[in-house]
Amino acid sequence: MELAATTPHEVSAFCFRPSPNTLFALFSVVSTRLQPKGVIFMMKNVRCAKCVRCGREYEAVPGLTTCECGGILDIEYNYDYIRSVFSPNSLADCTDWSMWRYRPFLPVEPDSPPPPLRVGWSPLYRADRLAQVIGLYRLFLKDDGLNPTASLKDRASAMAVVKAREAGADTIACSSTGNAASSLAGNAAAAGLASYIFVPSRAPRGKVAQLQIFGATVISVDGSYEDTFALSKAAIERWGWYNRNAAINPYLSEGKKTVTLEIMEQLHWQVPDYVALSVGDGCTIAGAWKGLKDLYAAGFIDRLPKLISVQAEGCCPLNRALQTGEPWQPMEENTLADSIAVGVPRNADKALAAVRESGGVAVNVSDEEILAAMRLIGRTCGVFGEPAGVTGTAGVKKAVELGLIDPASTVVSIVTGNGLKDAASGIKAAGEPMVVKPDMADLLSAFAARNIHP
Amino acid sequence: MELAATTPHEVSAFCFRPSPNTLFALFSVVSTRLQPKGVIFMMKNVRCAKCVRCGREYEAVPGLTTCECGGILDIEYNYDYIRSVFSPNSLADCTDWSMWRYRPFLPVEPDSPPPPLRVGWSPLYRADRLAQVIGLYRLFLKDDGLNPTASLKDRASAMAVVKAREAGADTIACSSTGNAASSLAGNAAAAGLASYIFVPSRAPRGKVAQLQIFGATVISVDGSYEDTFALSKAAIERWGWYNRNAAINPYLSEGKKTVTLEIMEQLHWQVPDYVALSVGDGCTIAGAWKGLKDLYAAGFIDRLPKLISVQAEGCCPLNRALQTGEPWQPMEENTLADSIAVGVPRNADKALAAVRESGGVAVNVSDEEILAAMRLIGRTCGVFGEPAGVTGTAGVKKAVELGLIDPASTVVSIVTGNGLKDAASGIKAAGEPMVVKPDMADLLSAFAARNIHP
Repeated sequence: MELAATTPHEVSAFCFRPSPNTLFALFSVVSTRLQPKGVIFMMKNVRCAKCVRCGREYEAVPGLTTCECGGILDIEYNYDYIRSVFSPNSLADCTDWSMWRYRPFLPVEPDSPPPPLRVGWSPLYRADRLAQVIGLYRLFLKDDGLNPTASLKDRASAMAVVKAREAGADTIACSSTGNAASSLAGNAAAAGLASYIFVPSRAPRGKVAQLQIFGATVISVDGSYEDTFALSKAAIERWGWYNRNAAINPYLSEGKKTVTLEIMEQLHWQVPDYVALSVGDGCTIAGAWKGLKDLYAAGFIDRLPKLISVQAEGCCPLNRALQTGEPWQPMEENTLADSIAVGVPRNADKALAAVRESGGVAVNVSDEEILAAMRLIGRTCGVFGEPAGVTGTAGVKKAVELGLIDPASTVVSIVTGNGLKDAASGIKAAGEPMVVKPDMADLLSAFAARNIHP
Repeated sequence: MELAATTPHEVSAFCFRPSPNTLFALFSVVSTRLQPKGVIFMMKNVRCAKCVRCGREYEAVPGLTTCECGGILDIEYNYDYIRSVFSPNSLADCTDWSMWRYRPFLPVEPDSPPPPLRVGWSPLYRADRLAQVIGLYRLFLKDDGLNPTASLKDRASAMAVVKAREAGADTIACSSTGNAASSLAGNAAAAGLASYIFVPSRAPRGKVAQLQIFGATVISVDGSYEDTFALSKAAIERWGWYNRNAAINPYLSEGKKTVTLEIMEQLHWQVPDYVALSVGDGCTIAGAWKGLKDLYAAGFIDRLPKLISVQAEGCCPLNRALQTGEPWQPMEENTLADSIAVGVPRNADKALAAVRESGGVAVNVSDEEILAAMRLIGRTCGVFGEPAGVTGTAGVKKAVELGLIDPASTVVSIVTGNGLKDAASGIKAAGEPMVVKPDMADLLSAFAARNIHP
């Protein structure tokens, strides 16, 4: 039988999805810090890439990395153009329920096909019982653990795959505490790209299993995340792979920003008081802020929320800088929240600027508070987040307790990764189940011993 | 600040979502095998519940279990009514991207609010590279591991939670190989219901972690699934909990059938030749078939596909019955695909009837073939399924190899659960990563030793 022609990938209602691209053929090598090679780029929505440190501007070619001064680049848009083609009303007609519904806000060539996996449009839940426990007027949870490889990082990796294909690359690489790694491996596999992935050897089993299943070449580095990053950087330079390292590749935060684009659309463009996030490298909170600023600049929202930056007490170099006003200093990586155990944050500039610009709050939480948040969110919301995934919510609770935010606030907290990635921490948080023999007498004894009275 | 009124749960565009229900208050106890108690039910779309063994009909009250003869009940619909209110055209306007978009096909009271977690509308991917490897004309993968608790079972548990609330229950219970358990625990927690969950002690760590985090009372039974089921049955009878045991509660397969409703809508109502599924208890394949039959009866599709029933060689009582024509006999539970390691299938009647009615195919696969399918799907599609989750696809490959299905066929294979639930099997399937010291010389040696030439 013949079924109707569809895109090669997700079969679903869609919009803004052009046919496959022939532009790719124009590139034959991976570009690093490219000036365009006579190729005309057609992103009318993108103005340039601008260094956040020295202000130098670059054309937004697919292989962009960092500025010659070493600063991180930020993609700048032509908001007049975006306003002319895109609005909340036009979006209401879009039936692409993925991050690509915001294509006019994304730095991709008009002919680029979307990548295969369906990333984004994760659910936003109103968490009334959790809000009540925390003592907060209103709380929403965005469960980004429901992305294809079970973390928010899929948003960045999907973008990286599109840009790698635009750059004509067939191999893509990164270092990661785990989630960026597994998301890159999964998104690359689906797109037919090879991947080289560097992870610290502490990465939890679930993330390692994903990497191996997706067929990545996985290099488990017996060292810290900083060691891992350094080795990946050397290898990427040596072999010329497309670079998906956070804070090196400026397109990644553009993918990540779709999380706040979605939140605002799901809230019908009514702006909450705060958006809370766990923070490691700084890329995710920087991306979240970029999304909010883009919406504001294009007139989709009429004000900006404040950010709540949450780090683990044992590894909080960015929050320490926010709290002291001093430059950030490296720290040890002492937390079970592996995804945010980043002693040398790569995107410090953008992250610190984001929290400060927003007039935001910095909160540190202990590992015990993180484990407690895993249990609390599970029991009140039916959402299972990994340790770093619930750290944002742990910080919201603590911020209320410390009087850092008004209990009458409306807060959105983003659960950034699925607890299934780290089952051991889940069991550490919530304990082992009772084991009984298969008979009623043993069950009754077990219930009695635990004071359970059904 | 005040945000616009929303449903208490997922915040998103929606339709067919009435306001919370006051009918619940009319029930004060959990009904078991209920005749209605003077309450008027209003499900115009449902005709009755009919025993698949003796044909006796019951009114479709919320607490239905099995027929007095011991037979399983099946929900029967009034298709004339459904046709009068529902069509592919009306569905095209529905913006509820969850299983509840098919509400006219579901046995829920008109006033029942949907449950909190967003279940369903998982992606359907066209898997061209996988099809090529298998030697099949066209293959689609439905990734149902992207449901809230990461398995297809969320569809049944969401339905169970709605029916439990209709029945006025505050506690719900089941036995399960793992996925039904974790999905019930998560969906119940989100809805504010208590849960008692019985799992065999072999359940993988990821599933156990979910149960504990969701705050269920978990009883890990040191015995087989059959032992676990028997203990849960005795406990449910003793304490009168709402019964979410598969094949006891006839509403569960009505939830599960939404997977095929979605597939057909995602394929624009163009019917594939085959739908392939892993089979344990038999409830899921029975539900999948029910969905297809409902669509056919209501005129949404013009023919029915055939089913491919896939079991593990070490535990294939239903396939053995299909292959021999003899009644099914209990088997040992010798497979690493824990979710389908069911030696005494509870829904044999419906499952066998479904495969036979469809003119379907039965295929058994070895554990090695299951592990190979995990790798193959991961590498070609970026989808990580648990062992039972990929067993259907392993069976499609084998069916082509054995000449049981025409290579020119179009097949839809449902990945029923996420590989993150069982990271150990993922690593068993795909191996451990290389470990290197954080320096280039060590990396070069490791590459050379593994014959990797970037």
